[in-house]
Amino acid sequence: MSYFPAVNHISYEGAKSDNPFAFKFYNPDEIVSGKTMAEHLRFSIAYWHTFTEALSDPFGAGTAIRPWNAYTGMDLAKARVEAAFEFFEKINVPYFCFHDVDIAPEGSSLKETYANLDVIVAMIKDYMKDSNTKLLWNTANNFTHPRFVGGAASSNEADVFAYSAAKVKKGLEIGKELGAENYVFWGGREGYESLLNTDLKLEMDNLGRFFHMAVDYAKEIGFDGQFLIEPKPKEPTTHQYDFDVATGYAFLQHYGLQDSFKFNIEANHATLAGHTFEHELRYARIHHMLGSVDANQGDPLLGWDTDEFPTDLYSTTLAMYEILQNGGLGRGGLNFDAKVRRGSFEADDLFFAHIAGMDSFAIGLKVAQQLIDDRVLEQFVDSRYQSYKEGIGREIVLGNTDFHQLEAHALSLGEIKTRSGRVERIKAIINQYLLNAFA
Amino acid sequence: MSYFPAVNHISYEGAKSDNPFAFKFYNPDEIVSGKTMAEHLRFSIAYWHTFTEALSDPFGAGTAIRPWNAYTGMDLAKARVEAAFEFFEKINVPYFCFHDVDIAPEGSSLKETYANLDVIVAMIKDYMKDSNTKLLWNTANNFTHPRFVGGAASSNEADVFAYSAAKVKKGLEIGKELGAENYVFWGGREGYESLLNTDLKLEMDNLGRFFHMAVDYAKEIGFDGQFLIEPKPKEPTTHQYDFDVATGYAFLQHYGLQDSFKFNIEANHATLAGHTFEHELRYARIHHMLGSVDANQGDPLLGWDTDEFPTDLYSTTLAMYEILQNGGLGRGGLNFDAKVRRGSFEADDLFFAHIAGMDSFAIGLKVAQQLIDDRVLEQFVDSRYQSYKEGIGREIVLGNTDFHQLEAHALSLGEIKTRSGRVERIKAIINQYLLNAFA
Amino acid sequence: MSYFPAVNHISYEGAKSDNPFAFKFYNPDEIVSGKTMAEHLRFSIAYWHTFTEALSDPFGAGTAIRPWNAYTGMDLAKARVEAAFEFFEKINVPYFCFHDVDIAPEGSSLKETYANLDVIVAMIKDYMKDSNTKLLWNTANNFTHPRFVGGAASSNEADVFAYSAAKVKKGLEIGKELGAENYVFWGGREGYESLLNTDLKLEMDNLGRFFHMAVDYAKEIGFDGQFLIEPKPKEPTTHQYDFDVATGYAFLQHYGLQDSFKFNIEANHATLAGHTFEHELRYARIHHMLGSVDANQGDPLLGWDTDEFPTDLYSTTLAMYEILQNGGLGRGGLNFDAKVRRGSFEADDLFFAHIAGMDSFAIGLKVAQQLIDDRVLEQFVDSRYQSYKEGIGREIVLGNTDFHQLEAHALSLGEIKTRSGRVERIKAIINQYLLNAFA
Amino acid sequence: MSYFPAVNHISYEGAKSDNPFAFKFYNPDEIVSGKTMAEHLRFSIAYWHTFTEALSDPFGAGTAIRPWNAYTGMDLAKARVEAAFEFFEKINVPYFCFHDVDIAPEGSSLKETYANLDVIVAMIKDYMKDSNTKLLWNTANNFTHPRFVGGAASSNEADVFAYSAAKVKKGLEIGKELGAENYVFWGGREGYESLLNTDLKLEMDNLGRFFHMAVDYAKEIGFDGQFLIEPKPKEPTTHQYDFDVATGYAFLQHYGLQDSFKFNIEANHATLAGHTFEHELRYARIHHMLGSVDANQGDPLLGWDTDEFPTDLYSTTLAMYEILQNGGLGRGGLNFDAKVRRGSFEADDLFFAHIAGMDSFAIGLKVAQQLIDDRVLEQFVDSRYQSYKEGIGREIVLGNTDFHQLEAHALSLGEIKTRSGRVERIKAIINQYLLNAFA
Repeated sequence: MSYFPAVNHISYEGAKSDNPFAFKFYNPDEIVSGKTMAEHLRFSIAYWHTFTEALSDPFGAGTAIRPWNAYTGMDLAKARVEAAFEFFEKINVPYFCFHDVDIAPEGSSLKETYANLDVIVAMIKDYMKDSNTKLLWNTANNFTHPRFVGGAASSNEADVFAYSAAKVKKGLEIGKELGAENYVFWGGREGYESLLNTDLKLEMDNLGRFFHMAVDYAKEIGFDGQFLIEPKPKEPTTHQYDFDVATGYAFLQHYGLQDSFKFNIEANHATLAGHTFEHELRYARIHHMLGSVDANQGDPLLGWDTDEFPTDLYSTTLAMYEILQNGGLGRGGLNFDAKVRRGSFEADDLFFAHIAGMDSFAIGLKVAQQLIDDRVLEQFVDSRYQSYKEGIGREIVLGNTDFHQLEAHALSLGEIKTRSGRVERIKAIINQYLLNAFA
Repeated sequence: MSYFPAVNHISYEGAKSDNPFAFKFYNPDEIVSGKTMAEHLRFSIAYWHTFTEALSDPFGAGTAIRPWNAYTGMDLAKARVEAAFEFFEKINVPYFCFHDVDIAPEGSSLKETYANLDVIVAMIKDYMKDSNTKLLWNTANNFTHPRFVGGAASSNEADVFAYSAAKVKKGLEIGKELGAENYVFWGGREGYESLLNTDLKLEMDNLGRFFHMAVDYAKEIGFDGQFLIEPKPKEPTTHQYDFDVATGYAFLQHYGLQDSFKFNIEANHATLAGHTFEHELRYARIHHMLGSVDANQGDPLLGWDTDEFPTDLYSTTLAMYEILQNGGLGRGGLNFDAKVRRGSFEADDLFFAHIAGMDSFAIGLKVAQQLIDDRVLEQFVDSRYQSYKEGIGREIVLGNTDFHQLEAHALSLGEIKTRSGRVERIKAIINQYLLNAFA
Repeated sequence: MSYFPAVNHISYEGAKSDNPFAFKFYNPDEIVSGKTMAEHLRFSIAYWHTFTEALSDPFGAGTAIRPWNAYTGMDLAKARVEAAFEFFEKINVPYFCFHDVDIAPEGSSLKETYANLDVIVAMIKDYMKDSNTKLLWNTANNFTHPRFVGGAASSNEADVFAYSAAKVKKGLEIGKELGAENYVFWGGREGYESLLNTDLKLEMDNLGRFFHMAVDYAKEIGFDGQFLIEPKPKEPTTHQYDFDVATGYAFLQHYGLQDSFKFNIEANHATLAGHTFEHELRYARIHHMLGSVDANQGDPLLGWDTDEFPTDLYSTTLAMYEILQNGGLGRGGLNFDAKVRRGSFEADDLFFAHIAGMDSFAIGLKVAQQLIDDRVLEQFVDSRYQSYKEGIGREIVLGNTDFHQLEAHALSLGEIKTRSGRVERIKAIINQYLLNAFA
Repeated sequence: MSYFPAVNHISYEGAKSDNPFAFKFYNPDEIVSGKTMAEHLRFSIAYWHTFTEALSDPFGAGTAIRPWNAYTGMDLAKARVEAAFEFFEKINVPYFCFHDVDIAPEGSSLKETYANLDVIVAMIKDYMKDSNTKLLWNTANNFTHPRFVGGAASSNEADVFAYSAAKVKKGLEIGKELGAENYVFWGGREGYESLLNTDLKLEMDNLGRFFHMAVDYAKEIGFDGQFLIEPKPKEPTTHQYDFDVATGYAFLQHYGLQDSFKFNIEANHATLAGHTFEHELRYARIHHMLGSVDANQGDPLLGWDTDEFPTDLYSTTLAMYEILQNGGLGRGGLNFDAKVRRGSFEADDLFFAHIAGMDSFAIGLKVAQQLIDDRVLEQFVDSRYQSYKEGIGREIVLGNTDFHQLEAHALSLGEIKTRSGRVERIKAIINQYLLNAFA
């Protein structure tokens, strides 16, 4: 049977097409700087937003019209697998991602939950044999169930810590079974509601211990996927321990975990933390910690995680710029951790939204590559930092100076001349590249 | 003499040009839907940001390198006029705007201030004779001097109220003298620092009285420019009385002033108030209160007025969409209430920045006009609100129903079917129009 | 049977008590400036947060442990009524509030929904006979069900407009039946998700029409409760039409509704709109539009509606200051539109939280009354605005001046002397009053 | 001569006093838990806000009326020293802090700047002999002058790096000369305006090099003060490298500097970064990185650094709670990095504001100590985390478990019971302690 009868395989039709079910900019086979667009972008579908999400909000019930909702329980879980692989094939993506509870319902005991997972994992593995779509990453949802109200690895209850460990252990086994490229930790409840009743040090120490045990277990079973931490500053908690990339990096260094983890960076989480998406990517990149990307966007005027499909071409361009400068994402990918708006409740909207996102990143890729090819930003940067290539600047960079020498230099100077940053000019050029990209 | 020796008249060179001193998209003479781009856009230069601004910030002294700063006092004021008209001619704009203190220094008494203004106004009038650049609007700066610490028309000191009235009176006379199209009120200090020491009602009533007197005086002297209120939510005050367009409209209605004023809407003020630029334009438009625009943009991650030059093409497109739907701005214009970044301190940056802004609005104009020509948004809207064109919907709109009839209708209904809002699809189409606009 | 077996009638034990089930500051019978605390504060319980709320959040399932959850359907609805009146009696409040769906489940048709409501309303009426607790207000929940995805009175679907009218009609009938003091409109979906697909003018016009029909119907059936609009800027929508009090007041004036409505002001909605709670109260007060209060507080570092129980004594003091200056709330009250944190999931927490809120407003009442008795703020204000009591200031206030006279006055002035606002001193005094209030 | 003729030595008069020039809660000699209030609080006056600040804002000129402004140049600098020591004595504080440019004007060359500093430093040293007020910390202002437009140690210009080094070198020498307890680095320009023209890695590496050189030079000259980094997320830059404590800690660990630095935590910087003040203090405390405090408060509804005097008793209580749990601030102190509002422009306001701040921290100290004495929060925490004291919880904390053992434990569990967090109850108790503190 088909869950999306109206839609066939989505194909590339070019920038002038008005077919809503066609790519206008994403041409998977087009070569950009030596690799296909598909290889550059490594798109991934988020199982939860596309197959599990009901489109509810804190003031409203779910609106999503999904044919598989005719089923319940394990039948629903199986119908979702069928729908998912139909969708993967039609939208033509190389990867997908899931939390344990997205694919199989929790049972009345942990043992039953395991059993449910085993059934669905086997089914997914079977479907993957005939599919081009692989597992970018999986993870354990250790935040929805009431038991996680006070955290998972940072819970105030030791039993919950143990329960969380069991779920991550199973997650690593599933990741190995399905050949996941990465394993993600998003600590939705690893934080606090109020500092007044929180033992911050114990919670952070426990989180450190938990990650070490996860690393050890992955080694033990030979799971070689990259471990990723996904920062988010707040929501659902008042304060989350992985506030942003820098905070996560402080944590990893403090607990000696920096060699075992990289970051999975989400655009909307960046902006909630007061950063641009590209800032978080850059910070991770220069610290060699850029692992993967949750591709979405937020609404800068709203204070919560809207998880919109990415359509802002400035954001996709600057993100792709960082990714290209990183030499790509390695085993990571661009995972659409994005949901259609509550008002976009029809199944067709799932296609429209993913096409919008994929086209937007395809544009971003082309514009970013052209900016790099023409060394647009590099020229401004080279010229602006020219002074560090010679004289006292070179000595500074080489580590050959001290305060005595620098003071002597400073005393010898007249008025220091600085260079204009030319930001307005650069922004105008980026607009030109954007409008010329497909002209 | 010339203040900008390196730059000649800026001309249009097209999207592929890499001449930083050329327009790439703004072609003043190009016809778009029956009018030239210049007629549509009615660009204006803000005297304060371009000729007076030092580029200081709360933690730093001014960085701007401006040749006219070789002068002081009235000589400086005169040099600025020369520089301004040179700049107007080179950048080729039809309008400019100023506050009183931008063009002439305050004297040691109000009388001396008047005298200073008279000299410069005469000089400007003289320059205008040989210039294509006219006065979009002028205003009185009733916020910088320490006397305005507690407000101007809403000051706690009656003498300051009187002083403010005198300055606005003079401003209206100057507006008439120079043929201003509008007169603007931005109440930078018309608000409060703390509610604890504020008589809110007296302050708002006084503001109402002040506006009535201004209207009366304009009539008396035959000044026919449009009166404009420029909303801003906060900064420098903690709370400003013209928080946003809706708040200003509440005020105008309450004091019976709604027929004498329209709004001058600034993009960055909109976002500081928690609205999009296009929201404020739309709200004003449907209430027939859209007068003029302060064209700039803010940084959504910063909590103060950054007054950046507008380069975000989504914002310029949606702004131009509202303006076109309004049938244009009438006597208003697009005034660049925008300053170069503190790091863009060279005189060349003034050109680069204005070119960036003018090109961005030219793109916005073209994309918006094409969206309107193709009825892109209108088709979605027509279809979405179809139900109000017939049956019970038509009765509602015609005002023919009551709760009895509506309840009877509701009781007759089965499950109500609603329509998808298709937001993701619409955003994808806007991206297509953007990339195709100059292709 | 009893739903809260451990708790008896809550009594006042004084500031030193460590009994968690006692009031420490709220003594309902204590006289403050001629009225009892209970008469001043007119506390109300929000049915939804206390008896219906599951304590879920966007990333987590409900945690609330409520004995009545042993039931389902209409049995659950009945058990909630029993629990509610037990709670009202034990916590000793004079009022409660509800939405239609809080008290009775929606049926499979509107007719069945009406029938469910009729059963529970009759039961509530019966319970009210033996209770001291009356209905402060009721309202229709026109935002949770998927049909309201595009709004209620501002829906894009005329059928939804009709359905909403039917629900409000029923709500007014229920309000009359139960003797409600007010009827509230909170337009949770009366706004837009995106301006791109929204006919703003039609939606606002329809909202105006809807309110007129509601006013007409109330008159028709002789419902004399005060109509209240509850502003909120956003959430769940991107932009809500009743953004704040000023925006609501603009709307009411524009549609000629200002004499039929007042405002129900919520603290957390104020801060989401960028205002203090006391600002919204003051603005409504001086426009004679202060109707009732949703007593809660937000977290200033979080961008969504947290609906916390009010414990910030600055906020309760300044709120009570406005309410006392308003001569009280008339038919309005202090409704705890507040929910216990998701981590405070035990039934006992309902008592602790309400005691915390009631004590906090009792403190606020006492501090505010003492500030007023001693004319603390009034003295600062009188002195600060002294200049409007005589001379030119008096002429301004009397409306006897014009720009000619004001200019003449201004020209006669030397340097204007202004007065220090003394905000730091005032804040220190408020702290003193706070610490001395119960000393 | 006297700069503050109306005010004598400020003394403690108790909570009922209405003398605006008296302490009502701060009694320097009162013993709280074995130390005097003065020893606990170690108050410090910020030279810049109290003696240099003009009270300007981005839209307004300075309003401050200061008798020493009768002087200019070095005479002004000397008058400020006289005024400062008069103020220190009258307000009775043990410490003060300054930037180099606060105490002496920059000369036309670095050499002349040094000479100016030498004169004033000698004068200050002389005054300190007869004063009880010592130097808490000094620092170099490497952000105001236009040369720092692109940063100081992270400037794009090597000459500016050298100039900054020279100024810090001099600062360390001055710190040693005057016996400073600490040396502070606030990187007002160490960040970026736009990522588009920024070499993030070079800038951060240079900052790391700079700090190492500063550490080396301090050792060389035997300056033993504690080095402190003061985090701030933004303003004046778009993004600052020391965004918050965690980001600073990531930086220090990455560059191997964590043993040489602690943090100087400012309340208003915490909230601008999206944290509570107490969060930043706690994070620093549990990492043994809490050095000193800039005592002020922000306005949660404003997006810029308002540097208000601290009067919020919740904030001072929770701050003192962290400081007491830290065993005090060691060589740090509570520095009033706070300015009177622009409307509080009289010299008297400097006293009122400092009294307000000192009283507020005295209250905070007493409330916090009483909370600690009664183990109020500790009891909630002990009970909440009880499960880590025995069984599997104890094994987790001791590091004796792995995923196998934890999974076995989890599989053996039934439904996990968690404990209520009781936040509402805790907040009510804090209110009780607050109102009982001086009763």
